[in-house]
Amino acid sequence: MNRNIIVLDTTLRDGEQVPGAKLNVRQKVEFAQQLKRLNVDIIEAGFPASSAGDFQAVQEIVRTVGDAVSVTALARAVKSDIDAVYESIKLANDPFIHIVLGTSNIHVEKKFSRSKEAVMQMGVDAVKYARALLPHVQYSTEDASRSEFEYLWQTIEAVVKAGATMINVPDTVGYAVPEEFGELIRKINDRLKNLNPDVILSVHCHNDLGLATANTISAIKNGADKVECTINGLGERAGNTSLEEVVMALKVRENYFGCSTNVKTTEILRTSKLLTHLTGLDVQVNKAITGENAFAHSSGIHQDGLLKDKQVYEIMSPEEIGAESMELILTARSGRHAFKNAVEKMGFEAGDPEDFERLFAKFLELADAKKEVYDHDVFYLVTQHRKLEPNGSLYELESFQVVTNDLYPTATVKLRKGGETFKDSSVGDGPIDALYSVIKSLTGLDVELKDYKINSLSRGKEAIGRVNIRLEHQGRTYSGRAMDTDIIKASALAFLNGINAAVLDSASEG
Amino acid sequence: MNRNIIVLDTTLRDGEQVPGAKLNVRQKVEFAQQLKRLNVDIIEAGFPASSAGDFQAVQEIVRTVGDAVSVTALARAVKSDIDAVYESIKLANDPFIHIVLGTSNIHVEKKFSRSKEAVMQMGVDAVKYARALLPHVQYSTEDASRSEFEYLWQTIEAVVKAGATMINVPDTVGYAVPEEFGELIRKINDRLKNLNPDVILSVHCHNDLGLATANTISAIKNGADKVECTINGLGERAGNTSLEEVVMALKVRENYFGCSTNVKTTEILRTSKLLTHLTGLDVQVNKAITGENAFAHSSGIHQDGLLKDKQVYEIMSPEEIGAESMELILTARSGRHAFKNAVEKMGFEAGDPEDFERLFAKFLELADAKKEVYDHDVFYLVTQHRKLEPNGSLYELESFQVVTNDLYPTATVKLRKGGETFKDSSVGDGPIDALYSVIKSLTGLDVELKDYKINSLSRGKEAIGRVNIRLEHQGRTYSGRAMDTDIIKASALAFLNGINAAVLDSASEG
Repeated sequence: MNRNIIVLDTTLRDGEQVPGAKLNVRQKVEFAQQLKRLNVDIIEAGFPASSAGDFQAVQEIVRTVGDAVSVTALARAVKSDIDAVYESIKLANDPFIHIVLGTSNIHVEKKFSRSKEAVMQMGVDAVKYARALLPHVQYSTEDASRSEFEYLWQTIEAVVKAGATMINVPDTVGYAVPEEFGELIRKINDRLKNLNPDVILSVHCHNDLGLATANTISAIKNGADKVECTINGLGERAGNTSLEEVVMALKVRENYFGCSTNVKTTEILRTSKLLTHLTGLDVQVNKAITGENAFAHSSGIHQDGLLKDKQVYEIMSPEEIGAESMELILTARSGRHAFKNAVEKMGFEAGDPEDFERLFAKFLELADAKKEVYDHDVFYLVTQHRKLEPNGSLYELESFQVVTNDLYPTATVKLRKGGETFKDSSVGDGPIDALYSVIKSLTGLDVELKDYKINSLSRGKEAIGRVNIRLEHQGRTYSGRAMDTDIIKASALAFLNGINAAVLDSASEG
Repeated sequence: MNRNIIVLDTTLRDGEQVPGAKLNVRQKVEFAQQLKRLNVDIIEAGFPASSAGDFQAVQEIVRTVGDAVSVTALARAVKSDIDAVYESIKLANDPFIHIVLGTSNIHVEKKFSRSKEAVMQMGVDAVKYARALLPHVQYSTEDASRSEFEYLWQTIEAVVKAGATMINVPDTVGYAVPEEFGELIRKINDRLKNLNPDVILSVHCHNDLGLATANTISAIKNGADKVECTINGLGERAGNTSLEEVVMALKVRENYFGCSTNVKTTEILRTSKLLTHLTGLDVQVNKAITGENAFAHSSGIHQDGLLKDKQVYEIMSPEEIGAESMELILTARSGRHAFKNAVEKMGFEAGDPEDFERLFAKFLELADAKKEVYDHDVFYLVTQHRKLEPNGSLYELESFQVVTNDLYPTATVKLRKGGETFKDSSVGDGPIDALYSVIKSLTGLDVELKDYKINSLSRGKEAIGRVNIRLEHQGRTYSGRAMDTDIIKASALAFLNGINAAVLDSASEG
């Protein structure tokens, strides 16, 4: 009988702190819905005291998936943070408060400049306060792997007595190595199960030395009941433990670990791709489990072996994580039925007949330009299509022309807003500069471009170009994303999407 | 007194097998020179029996760095492979032959369809044959982690008696977990040191479950003397053990491991960036050690802690891997001295005064377009500038104009070849399609574009766009790369570079 390991996903809290990974409320909710499909046990939805936007996002996630998934959010050991968590998650079916406070000398002395006793008392008071609000409270002993063991244990003992129901042991700076971290967890687990067998022991690792997955599974082997992870390992610095790596290691090596999770592994690849799509942060081709090459074999030696028996070089199959081993390639002649199959195979609804026709028309357009349409392309076609429809206050690209050469790159753009159209031209240092200058002047908004990123998605001449931009308007940052087979058009659309986000924001305040 | 761990880099053998990572001879030599600066102990330079090109590349690497670094290359357990290795590496100062043969049931039965005894005898014969050629021979027991221990040990014993001087234990499919793999190495090491204390024990791990680094350091802790790694973890499927992660784990946790390497850690980041540049395969932003965010801190909590004391969230400094903690930003007004400093800080020679002036002129051009020039940009400016100068048989871009709109994307291009110029226009499905159609028709070569990839390098509006293409000409594949602040121009240059590679190849055969 396998031991069940509780999986908490903190992509929306620890992952989203990463530079360039900021998501808006709608995107966070979309991702939370996918986490529900992935069947994680707990979603850490944010850090509500950090901003009104984060508070709102946590509330919205609770509203959308809080009936099916347990939801938590982060608080420092202060009343106002705990109140913010409580207010934002209280409507979930199974909410809990997560309090974090350092236990290492470096944290206690350098960060708080208080005595160890005073810091411990802060933790105890915070737990008591939180327990008066909700029956479940998790306490994280930040920087645990660099803490003196006896002080760490005293803290754990004190907060458990104060009512903490979960103890989370973080390797905050990614300093631990597997054998040592496993030993730490074994010692804590022995004492904790003696103190109160109902308290859940959890770990939260970072990947600074590339050891987060190994430390996490070593902790599981040594008694941890719960793990905190992110999709693609997204997180501060070198990131957090990758959910997909831990889940698949437990699955592939089930006989060794005797543990399993509730995660629906066939949703892994789609969750990874959705996150990449929302943040614009790619996983490298050789990323374990979710990288483009994770299941690709190329050397002559390996291909020969593989043909003789899959087991020779494959310890898991692409199907297990939701990839099809043989990708279906669509063309303009594939027809509605094949296209509908492809859409549904990726977990999307085909939509009502009218909407499906609009989607199919877009598919035909893409198939004409690109000849061969891959799963990849279908995925982006659908996510792109299902975005908010434009309304009267937003800018739409009516037509454009960009002339680029070594002398004077020039862009001419015609925009529509409600019933009006606007048209102008501008020169620039390069084609994108010219394009953005004219769009900026047409909208009359005082926006500043902070970031421009372009990638091609599927490979090939008429691959889809994906552009991510960030711009600043009245002190706030907005992001825009777009995809098109024409990289110039994708650039224009991404910039307009960012501008529309700023327009919507101003409107909702006005 | 620390135990010294021998570091073998196999980026040019196991790494280069990856789809899309194929390098030409010049690029391999350039990378080998950087590996020499990084001060790895051994370079595995290729698999000479696989193709004439690989054989040549190994020879060229030996010629360039074989006096300073030990060089090896891979052979299957057959005479012709061993001969190819010997012939290609024999001129190195300290060459050795690397023989690989499977020991797991799956490999022996499924791949070779021979008896275990017969396969072992193949290995013994191969070692004897290789030892007659060179005094050092490494034997890899492929798929060791899934082999029956007693058969694995019998094989090791037999090949050591036959003359193998290094035993390499691969976790070929990335199946092992650290505790178990450490235990395997401890058992082998105990018996091996008893059999012959001079034989070196090595490990070679793969990252399918995200555990390659952990398995490698667990092996070191349990007696391994040598590790096989690649830069950025590049390699088949989810890749190999990342050299940078193992080296920094041993350094950061020196007290725990009591081991060190000869690797010059301050060359790590430059080596990683050079590989990215040569292959076009990016590391993800949250890659441990070498990712763009590996040393970046963003959350309010962390920044506050970091300002109070760096140690709170940093276990190593960016300076240790060769990044400057505060990047120097150059502008058009920075002047020659500051630019020269920046070039030399990155390990490049400034070159003779005349060449430096040409480089400086390019810098000024970039600074005008981009306003702020980062280390990143300088790196690509120099690598770009130091490429082969065009000669009379190659195509150069004289001028171009691309008009892109929703109706008829059109490209007009003027090329120069020696004294002649060629000019034409073409329409296409998109701007890149139009551009490539006209270039193709101007050169009259029957090339087919197989792959087009675009990335922006540093972030920002006038960031540098990097384009990688692959094309096919007369059954062979050529790659082209180019960078420019104008993504359209970069696309044109990359395609021309690929075409020129094909032209050079035809010329050298003609």
